[in-house]
Amino acid sequence: MKNYSIAKSRRLRSTPYTSRIEKQGVTAYTVYNHMLLPAAFGSLEDSYHHLKEHVQIWDVAGERQVEISGKDSAKLVQLMTCRDLSKSKDGRCYYCPILDDEAGIINDPVVLRLNENRWWISIADSDVILFAKGLAIGNKFDVKITEPNVDIMAIQGPKSFKLMEKVFGDKITKLKFFGFDYFDFQGTKHLIAQSGWSKQGGYEIYVENTKSGLDLYDHLFDVGKEFNVKPGCPNLIERIESALLSFGNDMDNEDNPYECGFDKFINIDSDINFLGKEKLKNIKAEGIKKKLMGIKFDTKEISLSGSLDLKDENNNIIGELRSACYSPHFGKVIGIAMIKKPYWEVSQSVKAEINGNICTGNVCDLPFI
Amino acid sequence: MKNYSIAKSRRLRSTPYTSRIEKQGVTAYTVYNHMLLPAAFGSLEDSYHHLKEHVQIWDVAGERQVEISGKDSAKLVQLMTCRDLSKSKDGRCYYCPILDDEAGIINDPVVLRLNENRWWISIADSDVILFAKGLAIGNKFDVKITEPNVDIMAIQGPKSFKLMEKVFGDKITKLKFFGFDYFDFQGTKHLIAQSGWSKQGGYEIYVENTKSGLDLYDHLFDVGKEFNVKPGCPNLIERIESALLSFGNDMDNEDNPYECGFDKFINIDSDINFLGKEKLKNIKAEGIKKKLMGIKFDTKEISLSGSLDLKDENNNIIGELRSACYSPHFGKVIGIAMIKKPYWEVSQSVKAEINGNICTGNVCDLPFI
Repeated sequence: MKNYSIAKSRRLRSTPYTSRIEKQGVTAYTVYNHMLLPAAFGSLEDSYHHLKEHVQIWDVAGERQVEISGKDSAKLVQLMTCRDLSKSKDGRCYYCPILDDEAGIINDPVVLRLNENRWWISIADSDVILFAKGLAIGNKFDVKITEPNVDIMAIQGPKSFKLMEKVFGDKITKLKFFGFDYFDFQGTKHLIAQSGWSKQGGYEIYVENTKSGLDLYDHLFDVGKEFNVKPGCPNLIERIESALLSFGNDMDNEDNPYECGFDKFINIDSDINFLGKEKLKNIKAEGIKKKLMGIKFDTKEISLSGSLDLKDENNNIIGELRSACYSPHFGKVIGIAMIKKPYWEVSQSVKAEINGNICTGNVCDLPFI
Repeated sequence: MKNYSIAKSRRLRSTPYTSRIEKQGVTAYTVYNHMLLPAAFGSLEDSYHHLKEHVQIWDVAGERQVEISGKDSAKLVQLMTCRDLSKSKDGRCYYCPILDDEAGIINDPVVLRLNENRWWISIADSDVILFAKGLAIGNKFDVKITEPNVDIMAIQGPKSFKLMEKVFGDKITKLKFFGFDYFDFQGTKHLIAQSGWSKQGGYEIYVENTKSGLDLYDHLFDVGKEFNVKPGCPNLIERIESALLSFGNDMDNEDNPYECGFDKFINIDSDINFLGKEKLKNIKAEGIKKKLMGIKFDTKEISLSGSLDLKDENNNIIGELRSACYSPHFGKVIGIAMIKKPYWEVSQSVKAEINGNICTGNVCDLPFI
């Protein structure tokens, strides 16, 4: 695929880390929540191998927070998601599909309960703040909705635990997956969660104090040398191999959460009130007509910039490939596809035109095994 | 400024025209409403001169439509904008700032009244559809809200009138500025408005029938040879010289419409109901504290990727430069800046660090003269 430049402007917001990653060799950006999100530091495959073995620092400030506070904040957050948050706890993260009244997915954020009256919705790429404001205004909810000055840096990779222990001490090793707490760095408290958009383990630091955050960024590179720390970013190969779904890529507002395999985050039988609940009951009763599945192709190269039609032996279109990459682990191209009923059975053969050639492959389960 | 690649993926949606403009030499993209928007075909300055003299075809599909239809559609559209639409007419376009309940700007679209119960909001870069859905759900409005399959191509430049007359006949010359109507191309009707994001004149074709639209795209290049037609895109230099504001660049949700000089689109004295109305009354009574103004710098080169602090002689920060370019017309750098009271007086001297040098300039009126 030919390279095109990104035309920078104030509208594609820089992050506090942008000037640093540009000195450190970022080569490509994507745009996420109207903000620059690094997409490559040279070779994706080199970064993938490094991420699986060592530790990386990521500028993921594009993962913006929608802060909802006030008396009706819990009610508004619950209204937006099909996941039952009635038993949620302070200091915990929750993966929460956000739905509209037709049960179409609007975003798939991680929700942080700071306390009962203050929540952060750590969003994928869509303006959830506008949906929240519209709902709050229309319902006359007593809430305050803002995008706070929070710029996440992620520490990812198997050696992230040792690196973070070196900086924050033994206390951080006690943090459970999807738990968060406040940790001191040179006199400034930072909210840190054990989370991140890779399956290699690690942390996300929700930086509110920019100056301290930049000092911390530099410090992590200084003390991380012994762990072979490098700058990085969400890695296309690692995230597909790990079947981490990407909103806008693998699913969008035309899809419902059952089609995306989010069943365990859908609580239609609880008595909570959320948008799309009746619609979801109908969908469950009728059964879905398409489903996200994995695909493995008998080829070694792909570069996808949009959906790609998938066909069966008789040239019927049976679905569309939405994300794909060459997987070093499987030694072939793998991808995530929305497959029509009844073609979603494992082993269903598929074909697609890749780089001008007809390539064959098979449907498989997600996560990939 | 160093060049960085854009990492393409399904999330940064291609348009029906993308494969064509890539053959025609697009070199840079920006992202607009989660879609690829061409930002350069080689030299910006060459394109600028061509646009002012000849005619260009632009892929501006990123200018998405939010369609609002149904019994309460007029009520919902009015609720979102401070511009009085009670006397609006079918077949007309209206520039309408969209505000939240704090009178912060959410978008500055052009609204097309298709009929009393069906509207298109032709948006700048933010998810207005989510705001509209939230308001409609919260208020229990009887409306249907969708993003229809509409991909705008713009025909811009002084020769656009002759080119379009050649394709659509004499009838299109009768279309007034910001009027729209339906025109036939080889048996397919296309909605065409006399509008576009340049001051060089032209049209926007709201393509709903993709196949016919692509035929039309090719046809315009075929028959446009005599007018020296070229592919193009919104041009940074031309739009700044023309003082066409860009949401996200020149203003955002932290700004109110008085600060942006939108006074003639603010109807607080009418009896219509819209968000932020009381807040606007207070702002008007108290007076604004910052204001969008022009700046002219005594230098010939700038490349801006974010806000730049502007200082007075005593090094007080008096505002921020938000967009800027070298202007061939003025022979110097010009820009659009948010300037604090009382520094917004014309001729106020300013200084800023540009390319490592302290450059001096002066505040001036918008539009530039």
